[in-house]
Amino acid sequence: MATPHQVSMYGLREFPWVRAGDRLSELIPQAIQRNGLTLESDDVVVVAQKIVSKAEGRLVKLSGVEPTREALDVARRSNKDPRLVQLILQESGSLLRVVPGLVVAVHRRGWVLANAGIDQSNLEDNADGEWALLLPEDPDASAQRLRFELWETCGVEAGVIVNDTFGRPWREGVTGTAIGVAGWPALIDRRGARDLFDRPMSQTVVAHADELAAAASFVQGQADEGRPVVLIRGVRPRSPNGSGRDLVRRPEQDLFR
Amino acid sequence: MATPHQVSMYGLREFPWVRAGDRLSELIPQAIQRNGLTLESDDVVVVAQKIVSKAEGRLVKLSGVEPTREALDVARRSNKDPRLVQLILQESGSLLRVVPGLVVAVHRRGWVLANAGIDQSNLEDNADGEWALLLPEDPDASAQRLRFELWETCGVEAGVIVNDTFGRPWREGVTGTAIGVAGWPALIDRRGARDLFDRPMSQTVVAHADELAAAASFVQGQADEGRPVVLIRGVRPRSPNGSGRDLVRRPEQDLFR
Repeated sequence: MATPHQVSMYGLREFPWVRAGDRLSELIPQAIQRNGLTLESDDVVVVAQKIVSKAEGRLVKLSGVEPTREALDVARRSNKDPRLVQLILQESGSLLRVVPGLVVAVHRRGWVLANAGIDQSNLEDNADGEWALLLPEDPDASAQRLRFELWETCGVEAGVIVNDTFGRPWREGVTGTAIGVAGWPALIDRRGARDLFDRPMSQTVVAHADELAAAASFVQGQADEGRPVVLIRGVRPRSPNGSGRDLVRRPEQDLFR
Repeated sequence: MATPHQVSMYGLREFPWVRAGDRLSELIPQAIQRNGLTLESDDVVVVAQKIVSKAEGRLVKLSGVEPTREALDVARRSNKDPRLVQLILQESGSLLRVVPGLVVAVHRRGWVLANAGIDQSNLEDNADGEWALLLPEDPDASAQRLRFELWETCGVEAGVIVNDTFGRPWREGVTGTAIGVAGWPALIDRRGARDLFDRPMSQTVVAHADELAAAASFVQGQADEGRPVVLIRGVRPRSPNGSGRDLVRRPEQDLFR
């Protein structure tokens, strides 16, 4: 007989609606307890970007946004609200593609993604699309802060990942992706390692945090299912702690821009 | 009190070494039993491409491969073995990038990936790199066949995903990716759905099977950990069954080639 390598994921139910100023470091331990669980060392807490952004007050009302000439031009080419495009430009270092219905931007923090990650769904009082939610200012810092506060509250050193869903080239559909990481490896680097037969490993850098972010996204479901926080249990980190920045390929090393 | 939405993943330990002609539909139920588990309806069985390819006899000895002039040219530009490059060309519809150390190919089945997915690690007697393992001829068919045989053996209709690890543009590291899917949705399409506040959902197509493939990859670990099969339990499919083909973006709809 053998014992399987078990990894369990718990999507916390009845998580409250998050508003600017709410403290996730209080809401998350409360939700863990409400779901009959206890935070353990080596657990990874995956938190949807949306509630991090909301707690950090990253909601912007479009009526206060003044589009520049560049924003008006990009809005015309993409059929998007010029004020939304203005926010995309403010969040981005550059734009990679502009076609009708789609603006692919290089966010100031290096992520390549649609609309610079700005989201307009599942916001209160937004039937008219007058509100937009930006990504957290610094998701690695958000993850670090939450990790520290969870340690203060629960006495446990958990890993924290902030995830979002990104589209990707070559494949259909979006997948969960890590934008902030704390207390957990982002990449497992096995360069120099050898396989079972003493041959160098071929694919030696694995984006562990992105795999966890995707797994958690699967458990989170869509926003209307209300499970923005997922506890992952049963995996011990075997590499040094990393950050969301580690997962961003430097432009000069990227063959596909 | 609330009950969390729990998803459990079991990486089966003590899975035997797979050789050409082995029947995975026998080895997998045996391994499930050996790990003290029972296959249940709605379980998803994620199987590493490597053992599917091995069972299907996709090992090629390079000494029998004759490189064409094109292969010699690409080998020179990529610093790769011309016989390996010949196999890459045979597996591919076209090449997207050739730089020293890297050939990015469009596989005949549409996947964009390094070396057309050909792998030389963790093969027996391959210290000299004389063997190469191709992707399964048709991973959707492999998944369908395995699903049918598991139904015959275990009396259970499980979902089956064949996964591999793919690199991706813009981000560092490889992640688990679905190349074959049977009895399970590949994409969750929520176009037309509305959010909690009656606004159209923004990101409406989620690559569910890729998220599961990434989750399983995390549990499989590296090949030397010997857990090529992962049982995922606790998620009911809520969309029609799909295929690995659904996940491949059609070239004419792809902005990044």
